[in-house]
Amino acid sequence: MDKKGLAAAALAVRSLSMDAIQKANSGHPGLPLGCAELAAVLYGEILSHTPEAPDWVNRDRFILSAGHGSMLLYAILHLSGYKITIEDIKQFRQVGSICPGHPEYGITEGVEATTGPLGQGMAMAVGQAIAETMLAARFNTPEFPVVDHYTYVLLGEGCLMEGVTSEACSLAGHLKLGKLILFYDDNRITIDGSADLAFSEDVAMRYESYGWQVLRGSMYDMDGIRSLVEQAKSDLRPSFIMLKSEIGHGAPAVAGTAKAHGAPIGKEGVLEAKKHLGLDPERFFSVDPEAYACFEVRRKQLDENYAKWRKLFDTWSETYPEKRKEWDIFHSGKVTENPVFAEYKPGDMVATRTASGAALNVMAQLYKGLVGGSADLEGPNGVTLKPADDYSPERPWGRYIRFGVREFAMAAISNGIQLHGGLRAFCATFLVFADYLRPALRLSALMKTPVIYLFTHDSIYVGEDGPTHQPVETINSLRLIPDVTVLRPGDAEETGIAWQMAFNHTSGPVCLILTRQTIPVYEKDDPDWRNTIACGAYIVRYGDVSPEVTILASGSEVSLALRAAELITDRTIRVVSVINRELFASQPAVLKNMLTGSAPGIYAAEAGTACGWETLVTSPGHIFCISRFGESGPGDKVAEHLGFTAENLAKMITG
Amino acid sequence: MDKKGLAAAALAVRSLSMDAIQKANSGHPGLPLGCAELAAVLYGEILSHTPEAPDWVNRDRFILSAGHGSMLLYAILHLSGYKITIEDIKQFRQVGSICPGHPEYGITEGVEATTGPLGQGMAMAVGQAIAETMLAARFNTPEFPVVDHYTYVLLGEGCLMEGVTSEACSLAGHLKLGKLILFYDDNRITIDGSADLAFSEDVAMRYESYGWQVLRGSMYDMDGIRSLVEQAKSDLRPSFIMLKSEIGHGAPAVAGTAKAHGAPIGKEGVLEAKKHLGLDPERFFSVDPEAYACFEVRRKQLDENYAKWRKLFDTWSETYPEKRKEWDIFHSGKVTENPVFAEYKPGDMVATRTASGAALNVMAQLYKGLVGGSADLEGPNGVTLKPADDYSPERPWGRYIRFGVREFAMAAISNGIQLHGGLRAFCATFLVFADYLRPALRLSALMKTPVIYLFTHDSIYVGEDGPTHQPVETINSLRLIPDVTVLRPGDAEETGIAWQMAFNHTSGPVCLILTRQTIPVYEKDDPDWRNTIACGAYIVRYGDVSPEVTILASGSEVSLALRAAELITDRTIRVVSVINRELFASQPAVLKNMLTGSAPGIYAAEAGTACGWETLVTSPGHIFCISRFGESGPGDKVAEHLGFTAENLAKMITG
Repeated sequence: MDKKGLAAAALAVRSLSMDAIQKANSGHPGLPLGCAELAAVLYGEILSHTPEAPDWVNRDRFILSAGHGSMLLYAILHLSGYKITIEDIKQFRQVGSICPGHPEYGITEGVEATTGPLGQGMAMAVGQAIAETMLAARFNTPEFPVVDHYTYVLLGEGCLMEGVTSEACSLAGHLKLGKLILFYDDNRITIDGSADLAFSEDVAMRYESYGWQVLRGSMYDMDGIRSLVEQAKSDLRPSFIMLKSEIGHGAPAVAGTAKAHGAPIGKEGVLEAKKHLGLDPERFFSVDPEAYACFEVRRKQLDENYAKWRKLFDTWSETYPEKRKEWDIFHSGKVTENPVFAEYKPGDMVATRTASGAALNVMAQLYKGLVGGSADLEGPNGVTLKPADDYSPERPWGRYIRFGVREFAMAAISNGIQLHGGLRAFCATFLVFADYLRPALRLSALMKTPVIYLFTHDSIYVGEDGPTHQPVETINSLRLIPDVTVLRPGDAEETGIAWQMAFNHTSGPVCLILTRQTIPVYEKDDPDWRNTIACGAYIVRYGDVSPEVTILASGSEVSLALRAAELITDRTIRVVSVINRELFASQPAVLKNMLTGSAPGIYAAEAGTACGWETLVTSPGHIFCISRFGESGPGDKVAEHLGFTAENLAKMITG
Repeated sequence: MDKKGLAAAALAVRSLSMDAIQKANSGHPGLPLGCAELAAVLYGEILSHTPEAPDWVNRDRFILSAGHGSMLLYAILHLSGYKITIEDIKQFRQVGSICPGHPEYGITEGVEATTGPLGQGMAMAVGQAIAETMLAARFNTPEFPVVDHYTYVLLGEGCLMEGVTSEACSLAGHLKLGKLILFYDDNRITIDGSADLAFSEDVAMRYESYGWQVLRGSMYDMDGIRSLVEQAKSDLRPSFIMLKSEIGHGAPAVAGTAKAHGAPIGKEGVLEAKKHLGLDPERFFSVDPEAYACFEVRRKQLDENYAKWRKLFDTWSETYPEKRKEWDIFHSGKVTENPVFAEYKPGDMVATRTASGAALNVMAQLYKGLVGGSADLEGPNGVTLKPADDYSPERPWGRYIRFGVREFAMAAISNGIQLHGGLRAFCATFLVFADYLRPALRLSALMKTPVIYLFTHDSIYVGEDGPTHQPVETINSLRLIPDVTVLRPGDAEETGIAWQMAFNHTSGPVCLILTRQTIPVYEKDDPDWRNTIACGAYIVRYGDVSPEVTILASGSEVSLALRAAELITDRTIRVVSVINRELFASQPAVLKNMLTGSAPGIYAAEAGTACGWETLVTSPGHIFCISRFGESGPGDKVAEHLGFTAENLAKMITG
């Protein structure tokens, strides 16, 4: 270990962080100052990665779950040789910078996940570690460990208090993710002051209860950290390494206090700190050449290491061409064959959750890299893989993940699997419990991770379970999040297409909104509907070239609209299935008019809040919707009670 | 202990549950069958309550966190003498029934909280227990313990896996809530099958790590349960009582399997179970008179017990009339004096979070029952109480709760405090992290608990922290939830009024949406604005009796609109501050027209998604909004980058 070089690197992390935060007059110096030694030894000695190929599939992953400490990451990535220059660091927290306030995946080389919303980095790391075991189990051979890496996380008390961390770490222990190594920045300081104000649990015992190995050391003992990591690697359990530390270490003005957490230290404070650290206080954004030299040497090792792996990979590819072929398919994320979904005939009564289950199995058959599961609702969500293919420590090649009743961790873990690469993740729960995982869905959208979310039990038709289980506002609340695609198919046939659309959408998350109750398969007047639907909507019931009335409907309300249309004999009525409302709304007027037939009366029907239909109908009074909480009772009785019937839709139309 | 009577009661819980679920052909028999003995001994021996006065403030609380087992509650409440008849139980899960699918607060006497969304019942129980200590500390005297009750919870693996349970129980241990007693229905079965599929942590060790007392027993040993509760009561820590049990106990067809969890047992299965239990299989909805007799005796004890407390309370009232006066104010939830908020003058630059902090202190001064806190963002959220008044085991009379970085538990605990009565709860975090607590906000709305939510850092103007911390869709996502009131004041003066509106709104939760950045206080052309604002909006800049343009704006965009208006010299422009958009939108047209002046051009400005403004403007193109994620950078630079400037609003208006 080049101790002098690493010490210089730790100093550089401190000084770059102070300078960048001071220049931006914004940021969080506490963590970068407090954890600089860990960064140095991790990137200088421990991590197997290569700036030459930041996307190398077998690199070790490091996730800074305490994302506010972003400068730690930018500084150490700079030293490591990633595409972050001193000029970039000077642009810390400025518009357009590759060094934004919190680490953002896709913006900065070497950043493995968007973090900042606390706890989620931890859960994404669990996803990364799961993905590693899945790919290793599928592709490795005894002589060629092509997938064989570790996942490291750094977090503090903030993450530890978040429930999603508990969920994810309990599951990680259950799954015996031995290659997951967690560093706890044990400084006992949060924004409000001492962590003792709100957090006095025995963290070590908690992690032992999850089935983790718990280790202890000092943040400032680089040798110690290295040997703790060795201990972590030699154990089959995930490891929780508690590193005693001091927030803002090295800056006497703030060290050990909450003042260090989230505000610049101030010019005087930085001056004092630099003097204290033996740095020239007159130099800014300066790095000791010894630090660069140390990482130059490290980089050569890493390059060799990477070259060695490439060779291994090439030989493996030659030895196992079938495996290599599968590898390429996995990493392309694409299917070559067209999916053939189950056939249905008009009048068949099928819940779209059931049709989704069938379609999921078709896609899973075509793309073996599709993995996922449900938050303990395998049957109700219709996500059973056939044949059963559970993922477990004993069956790491299994594709069905039993997340337990942990919706939030499920979604964040799915993000982690997706970030890892080589796999496509789906996850499932009741639509109303989308609220439990919403923060992770937002991160899917921000990171553009194409997780497929299956939300069943999509309206008051859930019935007897009552308002706690009946979504009303939920579909619209998902549509509100930028870059989230929401698909609500109207029958079993559309559900297959919806699955295909979801699978092919690789630039962000997709939510499939599915019914609990059976609904009829209907005839489609548009013979080309399987193609037309790509614009977000298509004509189910033509009515007339210039219909007097057009009803836009989604999901179970398409058949409701069809029933309403049957009840109205004195006007020509068109029914349009709107599977993706936001996409439909964004189409050029000419296309929208073709679909609606520019009817003088355009209505919308959806068993949820009105919000968002206003611009698509001819009057705000033309939205047939539900704006209140539901009731416990059989689904159709609840609908009747709320007046949400085909008869009432017909009445709204005929006035 | 009347063992025979209690055994008959447990049998009655089983048979009523089976019959009700069979009749409804829907429901969850597993828990009521599995936990019937606990229900019997709890309501027959342990709980201090009285059906005579279900709202008795000093009753013990029991929360069924595993809400799907609702029939357990209905059956035992029926036996206990609450207003639930056999006829009501026959209406289980039917529209309009007082026995809905999941327990719903406000619908059924004796139901202490709406549960079903897992984990939240647990967290609400923590809130109830906190409220008990607060009121006890404030009102009790050594000789008169007028507030002195326990809070009991029953949960299973589902709740234990949810992150919110971890958050709440970690905090409960920290706060040493010794009168909180948790029963764990330790049956190791979830919907998907054995809990071992996803849940192998050492639950006992986990609770020990939180600082709880952990006890063990059998669900079917009533004597044992009673003595475990005694042990729990004699310890200063909260207690976690693990009761080994069998799901669906007594119904051989399903007992011990996931089949028992969430579906009727079936006619044959019920027949078999009744025979197995020694019940007449030909009798339905039948209760052994011995069970009634047992609870008749219990009821007399409870009545005496209650009468004793009333006497105690009366003597206390006479001895401490000042305390009694304060008690009445606490329980009225009202203030008698008019709040006098800080004065500001036009041009003052004040962040509304800062103005909110001042207003909070005014309200807290007038109403001493106002309690709450932040999820580790005391300073940033501006919720510091002056003088400091922390709640802790050593200062249970303190009013400021340090929730830690536990947003979801914070909100659920606030619901629990509110449900307890005698206090008013507020809680605070960044607006973007409203997503973390959304499921609890939904329950606030369902239960109509008037928790005051303070959400600061309300837009892209958050600035440097970047898109993970910049809400865009969040305000509208809150407005979507039925019965949630969302107030977004436009300056410091409006913020005081907003606080008053929030405080006076007692029929549901209120979200106050507040800026991080300073914004100007503006002159108000409506001299009566403090009253007009009650309709959701008022005129800030009059323009003209018939303005050519009216801009509807909320929050920080009111001053943006005023700047835009100044830039347009060739038309008359009105600016309306819309503090409560949904309320304004629901006003009669005549009122809306008075406010907008029926301008031919009506625009809206809000630094978030457009959704919901469509019906208020004269064209969908008249909404000045932000429909994409933000960026990291100084707030004004981010706004410029996104084109969200007064200049661009002016351009939109002038075309």
